[in-house]
Amino acid sequence: MIAFDTFGTVADWHTGVSRVLAQIFPEIDASALARSWRRTYAPALAEVEQGSRDWTLLDDLHRESLDRLLREEHGIRAGADQLDAAVHAWHVLPAWPDSPEGLRRLKERYTICALSNGNVALLTEMAKSAGLPWDFIGGSDLWRHYKPSGEVYLGLARLMRVDPGEVLMVATHVTDLAAARGFGLQTAYVERPAEWGPEPKPEAHCPDDRFHVRGIDELATLLGC
Amino acid sequence: MIAFDTFGTVADWHTGVSRVLAQIFPEIDASALARSWRRTYAPALAEVEQGSRDWTLLDDLHRESLDRLLREEHGIRAGADQLDAAVHAWHVLPAWPDSPEGLRRLKERYTICALSNGNVALLTEMAKSAGLPWDFIGGSDLWRHYKPSGEVYLGLARLMRVDPGEVLMVATHVTDLAAARGFGLQTAYVERPAEWGPEPKPEAHCPDDRFHVRGIDELATLLGC
Repeated sequence: MIAFDTFGTVADWHTGVSRVLAQIFPEIDASALARSWRRTYAPALAEVEQGSRDWTLLDDLHRESLDRLLREEHGIRAGADQLDAAVHAWHVLPAWPDSPEGLRRLKERYTICALSNGNVALLTEMAKSAGLPWDFIGGSDLWRHYKPSGEVYLGLARLMRVDPGEVLMVATHVTDLAAARGFGLQTAYVERPAEWGPEPKPEAHCPDDRFHVRGIDELATLLGC
Repeated sequence: MIAFDTFGTVADWHTGVSRVLAQIFPEIDASALARSWRRTYAPALAEVEQGSRDWTLLDDLHRESLDRLLREEHGIRAGADQLDAAVHAWHVLPAWPDSPEGLRRLKERYTICALSNGNVALLTEMAKSAGLPWDFIGGSDLWRHYKPSGEVYLGLARLMRVDPGEVLMVATHVTDLAAARGFGLQTAYVERPAEWGPEPKPEAHCPDDRFHVRGIDELATLLGC
C-alpha cells in the first residue's frame, strides 16, 4: 500500500493559501505571508510532540499562528471571520496537476492513503474539492500525533494490517521520508520545485529512497499502473 | 454528512459468505452456516463492549466464532487456511445492486462515511472490491469500540467536526438506528428483505426515523441527488 504526505506533495499549499490570503488581506504580500505562515508549522507541531502542550488540531494551530504573525509582523488584529476563512484555505488546496489522475491510476492496483498532519475533516474536504480518490484518510487526529512521530507511520500500518515494510511513503520532504525509513517503511521522493512559490526549493536526492520521481503520474508509470 | 452501516445495509453478507462457505465446506448447508455465524456476531461484540474481554478486532471474533460453530455443531476441526478464507469472505462482500450508484450520487452533495463494526482494513478491501466510493472509512478499530456504543457515533461526528445532529445514520437494523438517535443523530432505515437469505426479515417502520427507503438509490433521490 502507498501512503502520501499531502501539503506540498499532493496539494499546492502556496498557490491555494496565497490566493485566499490575497482576498482577505489585500494590503499584505500574500505569497510572503503564506510562506511565513508555513514556517510556523514545524515548530508548532514539535511543541505538541515534545509534550509542551496538549494535543491540538492542525486547524487550531494554524489559526493561532496566523493570528500571532498578523499581530506581531503586520500590526493587524484579524477578525474571527478572517481567521476562519484563512484557516479554511488549507481545506480546499488545489492539487498539483498530476495528482488526481496519478492517484486514480495507482488506486487501481494499490491501496492509497493520505498520511498527513492535517486532521480528518480537513483532508476529507480537500479530497472532495481537489478530486483526490483516497481509499483511506489517515489524519493526525486518528493518532493524536504528528509526523515525524512513529505513532503515525506505524499506526497506519497497524490499521491496514500490513508490515511497515509493505508501506511506501511518498513525500517531497526529506524529514518525513527519513522518519518513515527509520520506522521500516519504503520511501519515494516527489520533486515539487514550486512548493514555496517564488522561493527556490532544492530537491534532495537520497540513495535510500526507493523511488525519486517528478510527479505522482511518474510514480504510477514506474509502478506499472 | 451521512454515515452508513455496512454489513446488511450496503453489502449482502448472506450471499457473499454463503458462497465462500459452500466452496470451503461443501458438506455443510452454507446458507444455514452463514446465518448461524452471523448470529454469533452481536453476543461477541457485546462481550467486548461489556468489558468481559479486551478489545478484539472483528476479524478475530469472526474467526473464533466460526471455529467454535464448526467444532460444536458440525464436529469439524477446520484448518487455519480454511478459517482464513472464510473470515476473508467478509472483506469482499458483494454490494446490494443499488449501493455503488446510490453512494456515488450521494457523494456529489454529501460527505459519505462507512460507520461499521468492521475494522478499517476489512472495510477498505470491501470498498475496493465492491466499488463503494467512501469519503471516509469509520472502522471500529479507530475507536476500539463497537456499535451501539456512543464512542462510535460521537467519534465520527468529532472527527468530522460536526454536531451529532448533522449526521444521518443509515442502517437496516433498528438497534443501530435507535442508538444513533439516542446520541443525537438523525436516522434513515433501509429495507433489506433478503438480508438473511431464505429467512424472512420483517422490516421495521419507526416514526422516529427521518427516512424509510427501499434502497440507497431511493435515499439519493429523496435527498435531491
